[in-house]
Amino acid sequence: MKSTTPLVGILIGSDSDLAVMGESARVLGDFGVPCEMTVASAHRSPERVSRYAASVEKRGIQVLIAGAGGAAHLAGVLASLTTVPVIAVPLASSPLGGFDALLASVQMPPGVPVAVTSVGAWGARNAAILAVQILATSDRALRRKLVEHKRKMAAEIDEKAGHLAGSGPARLRR
Amino acid sequence: MKSTTPLVGILIGSDSDLAVMGESARVLGDFGVPCEMTVASAHRSPERVSRYAASVEKRGIQVLIAGAGGAAHLAGVLASLTTVPVIAVPLASSPLGGFDALLASVQMPPGVPVAVTSVGAWGARNAAILAVQILATSDRALRRKLVEHKRKMAAEIDEKAGHLAGSGPARLRR
Amino acid sequence: MKSTTPLVGILIGSDSDLAVMGESARVLGDFGVPCEMTVASAHRSPERVSRYAASVEKRGIQVLIAGAGGAAHLAGVLASLTTVPVIAVPLASSPLGGFDALLASVQMPPGVPVAVTSVGAWGARNAAILAVQILATSDRALRRKLVEHKRKMAAEIDEKAGHLAGSGPARLRR
Amino acid sequence: MKSTTPLVGILIGSDSDLAVMGESARVLGDFGVPCEMTVASAHRSPERVSRYAASVEKRGIQVLIAGAGGAAHLAGVLASLTTVPVIAVPLASSPLGGFDALLASVQMPPGVPVAVTSVGAWGARNAAILAVQILATSDRALRRKLVEHKRKMAAEIDEKAGHLAGSGPARLRR
Amino acid sequence: MKSTTPLVGILIGSDSDLAVMGESARVLGDFGVPCEMTVASAHRSPERVSRYAASVEKRGIQVLIAGAGGAAHLAGVLASLTTVPVIAVPLASSPLGGFDALLASVQMPPGVPVAVTSVGAWGARNAAILAVQILATSDRALRRKLVEHKRKMAAEIDEKAGHLAGSGPARLRR
Amino acid sequence: MKSTTPLVGILIGSDSDLAVMGESARVLGDFGVPCEMTVASAHRSPERVSRYAASVEKRGIQVLIAGAGGAAHLAGVLASLTTVPVIAVPLASSPLGGFDALLASVQMPPGVPVAVTSVGAWGARNAAILAVQILATSDRALRRKLVEHKRKMAAEIDEKAGHLAGSGPARLRR
Amino acid sequence: MKSTTPLVGILIGSDSDLAVMGESARVLGDFGVPCEMTVASAHRSPERVSRYAASVEKRGIQVLIAGAGGAAHLAGVLASLTTVPVIAVPLASSPLGGFDALLASVQMPPGVPVAVTSVGAWGARNAAILAVQILATSDRALRRKLVEHKRKMAAEIDEKAGHLAGSGPARLRR
Amino acid sequence: MKSTTPLVGILIGSDSDLAVMGESARVLGDFGVPCEMTVASAHRSPERVSRYAASVEKRGIQVLIAGAGGAAHLAGVLASLTTVPVIAVPLASSPLGGFDALLASVQMPPGVPVAVTSVGAWGARNAAILAVQILATSDRALRRKLVEHKRKMAAEIDEKAGHLAGSGPARLRR
Repeated sequence: MKSTTPLVGILIGSDSDLAVMGESARVLGDFGVPCEMTVASAHRSPERVSRYAASVEKRGIQVLIAGAGGAAHLAGVLASLTTVPVIAVPLASSPLGGFDALLASVQMPPGVPVAVTSVGAWGARNAAILAVQILATSDRALRRKLVEHKRKMAAEIDEKAGHLAGSGPARLRR
Repeated sequence: MKSTTPLVGILIGSDSDLAVMGESARVLGDFGVPCEMTVASAHRSPERVSRYAASVEKRGIQVLIAGAGGAAHLAGVLASLTTVPVIAVPLASSPLGGFDALLASVQMPPGVPVAVTSVGAWGARNAAILAVQILATSDRALRRKLVEHKRKMAAEIDEKAGHLAGSGPARLRR
Repeated sequence: MKSTTPLVGILIGSDSDLAVMGESARVLGDFGVPCEMTVASAHRSPERVSRYAASVEKRGIQVLIAGAGGAAHLAGVLASLTTVPVIAVPLASSPLGGFDALLASVQMPPGVPVAVTSVGAWGARNAAILAVQILATSDRALRRKLVEHKRKMAAEIDEKAGHLAGSGPARLRR
Repeated sequence: MKSTTPLVGILIGSDSDLAVMGESARVLGDFGVPCEMTVASAHRSPERVSRYAASVEKRGIQVLIAGAGGAAHLAGVLASLTTVPVIAVPLASSPLGGFDALLASVQMPPGVPVAVTSVGAWGARNAAILAVQILATSDRALRRKLVEHKRKMAAEIDEKAGHLAGSGPARLRR
Repeated sequence: MKSTTPLVGILIGSDSDLAVMGESARVLGDFGVPCEMTVASAHRSPERVSRYAASVEKRGIQVLIAGAGGAAHLAGVLASLTTVPVIAVPLASSPLGGFDALLASVQMPPGVPVAVTSVGAWGARNAAILAVQILATSDRALRRKLVEHKRKMAAEIDEKAGHLAGSGPARLRR
Repeated sequence: MKSTTPLVGILIGSDSDLAVMGESARVLGDFGVPCEMTVASAHRSPERVSRYAASVEKRGIQVLIAGAGGAAHLAGVLASLTTVPVIAVPLASSPLGGFDALLASVQMPPGVPVAVTSVGAWGARNAAILAVQILATSDRALRRKLVEHKRKMAAEIDEKAGHLAGSGPARLRR
Repeated sequence: MKSTTPLVGILIGSDSDLAVMGESARVLGDFGVPCEMTVASAHRSPERVSRYAASVEKRGIQVLIAGAGGAAHLAGVLASLTTVPVIAVPLASSPLGGFDALLASVQMPPGVPVAVTSVGAWGARNAAILAVQILATSDRALRRKLVEHKRKMAAEIDEKAGHLAGSGPARLRR
Repeated sequence: MKSTTPLVGILIGSDSDLAVMGESARVLGDFGVPCEMTVASAHRSPERVSRYAASVEKRGIQVLIAGAGGAAHLAGVLASLTTVPVIAVPLASSPLGGFDALLASVQMPPGVPVAVTSVGAWGARNAAILAVQILATSDRALRRKLVEHKRKMAAEIDEKAGHLAGSGPARLRR
């Protein structure tokens, strides 16, 4: 059954990243996109990452999401081993505040792209939506859900603006 | 009546920015400059921002203030759509500590300026004063209020220096 | 005919970015993916960008690539207006060396992802390959070309290692 | 005669900044806004800066533009001494590439705003346009010129896109 | 009487900096160097700073210490107005974590030096010791106190090493 | 007896660094590598550092680990005085978040290497493992322990992945 | 024969790094340490890197040196696959000036150390000396060569100081 | 004779720094302050630096200036070994553009100050003037020369402003 075969694989470099990266799984769930999530460290369990990467295409995984901090190599390693799009979420888990994970994720050499999203929780959410956008290039139902998601975001802003109006120090505009 | 027509429009990219950006409205209130404030995200509600920008000049808004964090595009989008001065307040709402919002706000291409103030709460206050300075280029009463504001700031420093004097480890100078 | 309908749209914020971003078009050409390229500035021609974005989905464009420097908003604006995946190439066209374009591209707020690649020429090449990877999620022929591309890259490295061997100050390993 | 009384004062911290900051004067000239330009260093000639600042308001100068590099204090000093809007152009004249001038210009304490534009030549141009936008808050003719300037910028982009079309590796879009 | 005439003047840009900069006064007190401390903002009370600077040399002040955060100009302004050595302590009082105050203090143009110490509390302490070192160039008693201070620091480290020894997971070295 | 002669010397610049750097000693203990730890500041007790360095080789110390923050010179000073490998752990003890200690440690001039590990606690652990790797170049038993350590790390990741599986919003992969 | 079995393996991520990293081989040659050098990209030829890593210990390689730029993963990948010490030389080959390669190399997670040296040519030289220091922990002849190398460096400085003396604007000290 | 006994010692970490740091000697010469200059590397010739430091006070040297790049430790080492004021000039000699030398120089721990000036040539000039300011705390003739130097700088700016006036696109102000 289609809905039980994961289309997106989410990898986290450490289980301490679960709190942030769980958001990717939740958003994919909201879009009805089956996904799987596991822990695999590029540096501490390279063979696990290799085995995982080797299984991706034959199991029908279409997009990978990798969340990692510090010298964040997880997305890059996956991108070196597969041909599916790999999305990186740089995490702010070291004293350098995420600059390290951002630069270690984004500056891939020519030939092996990684798609990098925002640092931390914003990126965990956006990685999932980007995965949906990629799957929607061949799935009209998903495309419609994205259009609806966009409409809802705008409506929420309108609603917040409405709440803001009618109170406060400034004349607020609905 | 003049005082009920807003001269300054304040936009915030997210209602979580209200606590910081409310200071802009308070300062404008202190100067007796009517303003309005609303929520509108350059990325999540682009049409709302476009509609707002289209209304600015016909409604008599003379200056815009935009507070946003991360890849802060709100001020830039407003500047691309109107000809009134647009003031940006970069907010420190991501793990990158405001460096992202500062660079995303200030590095506008030639032809489309944005006036950037300090990161965070300092900037929220300064954006309002800058708006008053702009309006004061054709309003002598406002100019006098700015002169008075400057005088008061200096007096407050004198007073603080007075409190400091007469105690403490060093001989303090009044 | 399939080959004449562009599947990927490449936008550059300024024609001075053509030299770098032309590489995206060349790589897409190598993969046989029809694309189009045009100039459109988020800040200097916002309506052109809006018109372009509005046409994307009905014309069958599946992926967008945006190359811009400084307060690089082009990818973000496209992402706010469409639901196709948007890939950003941050360009090093200001004195701040590309840090500005990187942060302005990558730190998108939750809800509106952009897929960011390396700064400059590396990113121009990688954006095209990422676009091919995205299209390959529903095109087995493209997937095979990606596998072949990966094989070739590895072979080139082997060949270079071969050239290196047999000379130089160190005993070189084939 | 109105056209001979400068409305905008441009200060440069060193005559080596003339090449970059001359652009501010040229743009103001294009808009027909009379301006004056002089050299005055916040650190090497503080009295000259004070004298200049003291003369600004009585001579009818409405906006100041200050271009400086390194520990760029010129705009901040002017803002501490006058109540007219002060625009800063951070210049990349030290080995730190303009990051120093940007941070030294933008992080003004609450109470004394400076309006900061892009680093270097982009900012020199934008500072002039921002000055025009400020003057246009009470000058309908200038406002019309700004609208025309915006229209021209968009038209230039359209024209460049036209040149790009019809050649090159990609199918280019007019 | 010598001990009641301050030889070092400490200026702070805001009374919120008192907690950190009070350490400068305490250290000077430990060395028996009379000092005075006051509040004076380069931006909010420029005349107070000018008046203070004008009085420095005639009152016998030999060294100035200025602590300020953000676009920290206080030390630079003092250096532009006097010929005594000016020591800057960059404070981490903005969201940019002290990088702004450091660059705004240190990158002075040729001709007007400022002596910059560490960011924050370390710098407050070191500014005082540097002032003592400067005064000691013509005061043998102070020089001896500095030698004693150096000896004490080394002795404290020896003592701490002694406490560490004899316990803990490693064989500790006295 | 071999086990009582320390093979690794750990130096900390301040006893406030003990909490972080104690991890180096614990890890060395886990590998059965005898070590010693002491406090010695490059700046506050230079003679203590010199004396320590002079004793290193004759006492049979094979590797040095130095943990320091700010203008972290401790590792560099040791490297200038000995010929054993010196490992630096940059600590995030100043407001600049560890960027200062990292750059002050890593940018050694040609001729005098220092081996730099991650900033903070990650680096404290890694410095110890690197020391073990160095000693293992001539100690087969240690090499086997390293192989076992690697195997364990991978097994822990497998186990964590197992815990993750069977629950949560996503289908988790063992 | 000992001299023909390489003890140090040097890997470069791209043959464009040969000019800089050749220095590592030259320095090892000066110390009489046999080494080998080859090209292998962590991202473009991951299997080549894996094969190489798998051969390291059985062929008697004792230390690895990896030079790479951008999102420099080469050293980290080697460290994840072997237990020999891995030295990283971050190269400044992208527009971000080496900050990317430095952070991507140094911020390794706990458990998998990499020994990072200076960015660029300084690091290429230092990586070789660090490798010699590591080998010298069990090779007294190498240790003597390191002592001699240190003596020579100091003598060269003395000689340069001698050349400087006797001329120039200052009284120069031999 | 007083004028032949150097009062200021200038140390450079490498003879490649001579071009920049020679400016310090020239400026001291202009003020008639006898100085000496030599090469001594904190890392490559630590004993030379120690010997030099030990001689400083007995030979009557009152101020030290140290110019160094990268992990610039020279000033810090001198400050740890003497009690005279030590001025650091961070040099931009590595690919990291001087940020490394700045942070390695300025972030000294509490107890051991260094007086840091601008990065590169600006700092070389300013270090000399700061040294003169320090010596002028007990030398009225030098103080008068500093006042004259300040007057000249201001006059030069006036003169440059005069040259600028009367030509160019803007009405220039004398």
